[in-house]
Amino acid sequence: MFIQQMSREECLEALAHARLGRLACAKSNQPYIVPIYFAFDRAASDDAYLYGFTTLGQKTEWMRANPRVCVEVDEVKAHDQWMSLVIFGTYEELIEAGNQAAEHRRAIELLQERARWWEPGATNFVAKAQVDQPKPFEPIFYRIKIHEVTGHRCGAIPAAEAPDDIAISQLRIRGWLRRLLRRVSVRAANKLP
Amino acid sequence: MFIQQMSREECLEALAHARLGRLACAKSNQPYIVPIYFAFDRAASDDAYLYGFTTLGQKTEWMRANPRVCVEVDEVKAHDQWMSLVIFGTYEELIEAGNQAAEHRRAIELLQERARWWEPGATNFVAKAQVDQPKPFEPIFYRIKIHEVTGHRCGAIPAAEAPDDIAISQLRIRGWLRRLLRRVSVRAANKLP
Repeated sequence: MFIQQMSREECLEALAHARLGRLACAKSNQPYIVPIYFAFDRAASDDAYLYGFTTLGQKTEWMRANPRVCVEVDEVKAHDQWMSLVIFGTYEELIEAGNQAAEHRRAIELLQERARWWEPGATNFVAKAQVDQPKPFEPIFYRIKIHEVTGHRCGAIPAAEAPDDIAISQLRIRGWLRRLLRRVSVRAANKLP
Repeated sequence: MFIQQMSREECLEALAHARLGRLACAKSNQPYIVPIYFAFDRAASDDAYLYGFTTLGQKTEWMRANPRVCVEVDEVKAHDQWMSLVIFGTYEELIEAGNQAAEHRRAIELLQERARWWEPGATNFVAKAQVDQPKPFEPIFYRIKIHEVTGHRCGAIPAAEAPDDIAISQLRIRGWLRRLLRRVSVRAANKLP
């Protein structure tokens, strides 16, 4: 097993190909996670964003009150072949009118390039409407401004790049875990900015 | 498409077969998500728990300060065949000695029934040790007490149970979304306790 820290550029490249993530928001220090579909975009200023679509509900109420969010994106092909990204960002709701009109259009454009982008935002609304009193449908386009993204990748060890062995024996690890960890090798890229 | 709310029993049954989830904790209202492996267990008192293993890091520091967490578990086989659970719970660290010794042993027993349970907790530690100064290895067993679990499931519509059509036309939905939503049918089970 070969774990590697990903650079910011590698993380953004992976986000450009991803579509499904988990978004966490928080209220009174209680976190709440929901799955989201998103489209990644990078502005001319090099700011990076995730664009999404949802409907009014607990998630949007919480994020309006506290826009600090975390998004996790992973791809697990096998136990020793995976990629995991963690993003810290800010939620921004995009209003159709006014000075956000262009961003609102951009969100629709980006999302429409992807099949079924309106799930699960819309289906969530319909599920709720059936249980509770139907509320007016309020489609919400939003973006997450990415402040920090970190990532790890695990894969087979490239023959030409055998990693430095970590001195596991020097760590205070119990026998049974040490035996397991001997199978784990790590190469860390430079620290992310 | 056919979305169904899951009862608490159905959610717990799904958890018994799941292994991978995403855990969110929060500090100063900033949420943070990490993937976790877990083992589900139910106490004689009917309290339900997720047991997990990790090492000292940002996640454990945050959860020690604020034990309110959220765990999301999903299984996506296709866009119209998925299951998603959201759990609100409390983090409890299990100490090897003292009155938590039995629970600590229980965590190890449950986790050891599952292959590779020590990932990603241990690999995360090794990755960090390579980048930062190696710290003493501190294996941490914990459990999440489940206070509330809700779930939704999406699948093909059973022929014998055609759902009531939701009166989408009565909702204030734009044409383009209305056309999409007409394809979505929903049946809601009784509200969860």
